[in-house]
Amino acid sequence: MSFGHHKVESRRILLREIAQHGPMPRIELAAHTGISRATVTAVTSDLLRGGLILEEPSESPSKAPIRGRPRIDLKIRGAAHLVAGLKVSDTSISLVLMDFEGNQIADYECQMDQIRQPASILADEIAKGLTALTARAGKKLTDLSGVGVGISGVVDADNGLVYWSPSLDQRNVGLGKILTDRLEVPAYVDNDANLVAMAELTFGKGKDHSDFIVITIESGVGMGMVLGGQIYRGTRGCGAEFGHTKVHLEGALCRCGQRGCLEAYVADYALVREANSVGAVNLNTPTSQAVKTILSAARSGDITAQRVVERAGRMFAMGLANLVNIFDPELVILAGEQIEFDHLYADVVIEEMRKSIVEIDKPAPEVVVHKWDNLMWARGAAAYALEFVHNMAVEALDDA
Amino acid sequence: MSFGHHKVESRRILLREIAQHGPMPRIELAAHTGISRATVTAVTSDLLRGGLILEEPSESPSKAPIRGRPRIDLKIRGAAHLVAGLKVSDTSISLVLMDFEGNQIADYECQMDQIRQPASILADEIAKGLTALTARAGKKLTDLSGVGVGISGVVDADNGLVYWSPSLDQRNVGLGKILTDRLEVPAYVDNDANLVAMAELTFGKGKDHSDFIVITIESGVGMGMVLGGQIYRGTRGCGAEFGHTKVHLEGALCRCGQRGCLEAYVADYALVREANSVGAVNLNTPTSQAVKTILSAARSGDITAQRVVERAGRMFAMGLANLVNIFDPELVILAGEQIEFDHLYADVVIEEMRKSIVEIDKPAPEVVVHKWDNLMWARGAAAYALEFVHNMAVEALDDA
Repeated sequence: MSFGHHKVESRRILLREIAQHGPMPRIELAAHTGISRATVTAVTSDLLRGGLILEEPSESPSKAPIRGRPRIDLKIRGAAHLVAGLKVSDTSISLVLMDFEGNQIADYECQMDQIRQPASILADEIAKGLTALTARAGKKLTDLSGVGVGISGVVDADNGLVYWSPSLDQRNVGLGKILTDRLEVPAYVDNDANLVAMAELTFGKGKDHSDFIVITIESGVGMGMVLGGQIYRGTRGCGAEFGHTKVHLEGALCRCGQRGCLEAYVADYALVREANSVGAVNLNTPTSQAVKTILSAARSGDITAQRVVERAGRMFAMGLANLVNIFDPELVILAGEQIEFDHLYADVVIEEMRKSIVEIDKPAPEVVVHKWDNLMWARGAAAYALEFVHNMAVEALDDA
Repeated sequence: MSFGHHKVESRRILLREIAQHGPMPRIELAAHTGISRATVTAVTSDLLRGGLILEEPSESPSKAPIRGRPRIDLKIRGAAHLVAGLKVSDTSISLVLMDFEGNQIADYECQMDQIRQPASILADEIAKGLTALTARAGKKLTDLSGVGVGISGVVDADNGLVYWSPSLDQRNVGLGKILTDRLEVPAYVDNDANLVAMAELTFGKGKDHSDFIVITIESGVGMGMVLGGQIYRGTRGCGAEFGHTKVHLEGALCRCGQRGCLEAYVADYALVREANSVGAVNLNTPTSQAVKTILSAARSGDITAQRVVERAGRMFAMGLANLVNIFDPELVILAGEQIEFDHLYADVVIEEMRKSIVEIDKPAPEVVVHKWDNLMWARGAAAYALEFVHNMAVEALDDA
């Protein structure tokens, strides 16, 4: 380990500490990180000179001047860098623009004609979206220092490789590189549910937890796992797969081609398929409309619709209970935007889950429902990009 | 962080490095751990003076004297401490005696009358077993520096608390404290499958891996998970539960009182129950004998017996596939001693598992079958105790 390596590492640690817990004075930075006050003074001086952080008088009344000296906090300099985060959905892209401090500057949503398309076309759509997004803040695409991209499917995030995604017409697409080349801005691709976990960890209900699971339900079922404060990705980069775990041997056929996957019971198309099979919904209705019809019929007392919804809920509870048995997490966050899936987040499902976990004389993990709009995914993607941009900025600092 | 804290930490790191990868010379210790040569010299001198390590001339021919000086390796001094490891089975206890270097000195097995008993009786049985074990090496129980105990059930290892075990007649037993008081030697209790994972990590097929899963099958189904080189225990200490994950909604009744658990399909009693239900085995036969009868009937072409065995195998494959989907481990070790469960470790089951995992264009995790005798559990328990004794010994070192 050279001295130079130590210095970059100290810069990284202090910048991250300020980003996560700042603004704060130097003395607190030293206390939180275990780095000596002398080193904190030297390193923060580099960060200040590089324009990555700012000094400001403390605003907190509890942080009154000590021994007559005005207390100075260090905070991230928002204007230092600009990042974008986006989430590719079936026929739309949601985007947010974020400054170096994590403040949301602008957002944008655009529509696409196709769900499944070549990577080059998707890259064009993303470039168009980013151009419109940055224009909202009077900026250009190339003003961005990084772009985080969430996509559903199986993704090796470290290599920006998409093994498979419903949004792409080919397998094994090096989407990270394709986007970086097309945008001329570094692009970081991850599974969308991992980015929801990142959003929960950075801004959301996971902020004070180091071990939790986030489940997302929209047209598919996603999962992000945080273990020891880090996103867990497995050894081939494709761990944390939940929607295609099996809940029934030789069960219902799934879109993935296998049988008995959780998704084949709880995803929107699964509910519609069941209801269709007994003529309870009109086959020509679009899926999202058909799901609403089934759920409102169930609420109005239609027994067939209730049976469809009830089985989906119990299968979901069984899958959740298995996760809790395996991981024993502190917290399970059921995250999503679609009101349609209320039945899966209902108290009765959570109660059913509790009955299916190994019983010990300690409370079951907390289960919280976190409803939010589509931008939460994009904010998670931006937070993911911000981590890389933090590191890049620290490495680029002049040693002068 | 005080200087004293640093010193203990350096001692701990160097002792562990020598234990895991030694014998080795000081220069390699410094290279492996990133600790400076000066600190390595000072700290190893403490460890030598405390009798925890030894110097010996290098025996390796590739490690020839450098520049005329004989090369000196550092190794653990086996005689420094003695530990025992034991595994509580249904009606027996298997024990091993191990020196500070991890060499097995003696082993012993004793029978018990009862499967389920009060903790005080179990503690007496364990004390008797340890007395007989240590006597084999001309030692006494109180010569032990630590005892590792593996027991099946749900265990909070950090607190030595057994939430539930088939070997105990009560729930929530502070077995660690009860044993420590009874034996007058520190006792460390863990779930038995975790200790198999520890054995695989220390001596076995997991030695070169940092992320793997060990599945054990005997009368129940156990799992140990190693993530980042550490046993993963979950946040309440009861994670890594596999046998009671559900493979069928409202499925077969399990001994735990719930329905559809994997164990309720693959454990010995489950096979016997199925075969019994169609009169294929004699109800009065002991379970282990009945399992042999079913398996040999299946092998001889009995279709009913084949159907019983085949479903167990497919349920097991489904459970395994779910674990691989969630964790994406490097390696899955199917570990056990009982030839009866051959059908679950068969190529056809492993093939079935591979067909049920998410398909990406990378090889599926390696699956290996590791058969060994009952002492492997006990050796894992001893390795677990050894970790604590290492730390204890380092903390007890005189600063003189």
